[in-house]
Amino acid sequence: MEEKTEERKIVVAVDESEESMYALSWCLKNLVSDQNPNSTVLFLLYVKPPPPVYSALDFSGYLFGNDVVAAMEEYSRELVDSVMSRADAVCRNSNAKMKVEKKLGSGDAKDVICRTVKRLGADTLVMGCHGYGFLKRAVLGSVSDHCVKHAKCPVVVVKPPK
Amino acid sequence: MEEKTEERKIVVAVDESEESMYALSWCLKNLVSDQNPNSTVLFLLYVKPPPPVYSALDFSGYLFGNDVVAAMEEYSRELVDSVMSRADAVCRNSNAKMKVEKKLGSGDAKDVICRTVKRLGADTLVMGCHGYGFLKRAVLGSVSDHCVKHAKCPVVVVKPPK
Repeated sequence: MEEKTEERKIVVAVDESEESMYALSWCLKNLVSDQNPNSTVLFLLYVKPPPPVYSALDFSGYLFGNDVVAAMEEYSRELVDSVMSRADAVCRNSNAKMKVEKKLGSGDAKDVICRTVKRLGADTLVMGCHGYGFLKRAVLGSVSDHCVKHAKCPVVVVKPPK
Repeated sequence: MEEKTEERKIVVAVDESEESMYALSWCLKNLVSDQNPNSTVLFLLYVKPPPPVYSALDFSGYLFGNDVVAAMEEYSRELVDSVMSRADAVCRNSNAKMKVEKKLGSGDAKDVICRTVKRLGADTLVMGCHGYGFLKRAVLGSVSDHCVKHAKCPVVVVKPPK
């Protein structure tokens, strides 16, 4: 098992959830050394959902006005800013030293996360685990399930403490 | 998010596979600090399969002789020793400093692992990922799938490099 001496790349998937912020915090505490400030690059990855298919038509078949579409885009931008600001705050409040880069993706989260991990040649992927019940997990939990199976690197699924 | 200052407990599930030894190695390199020799306890957990139901009868309906049962038990003991020796060697060859404790379980691996994590109050569970194809993964991969969902702590699923 060879020793890698080059930069270590850790991708943390962040979203609006408390779970993802806790995962980031866990990562800083457990995976990022407080020595060697240049040895770790932390990629904060936020994946915007794909533009919804129903964005052009509402349920009664009318076109959404430009103002509605603009408002939705504005909301989406604000959400990204809000998530990244919170992630920044978590990083600042930790003792961990590393370079931080922000990445913004768009599409199906599970595919975008796996593709990004591969493209960056990441060493580790860290993500939160939504503590939902069976039914919701069947849908939402599939992101971490999928990434554990398909991401080309070790994957940490972090659960918040009870 | 409170800072824990007490001992950190990491459980690594080890078995006969190369993948589990790589997972242990990954853990030592990435999760165990080379400072604070007393801050981490590493539990090496090996789970023996449950005594097979067919152990008393072979397929033609005859009772296995005591010699066969004794030979199977001997083989099982040797397997445990061999896995733990390899794990010891991986620990010795790393620069990581920690206390190491060995745990031996028996039963369905996925249940024993989750129960052990809960009983020890582990902070992190580390396990390998068998790089099998779809069909084998459906059976074998279910251990890590189950643990990611049910273990009461963050879970790292480590894939060996290609």
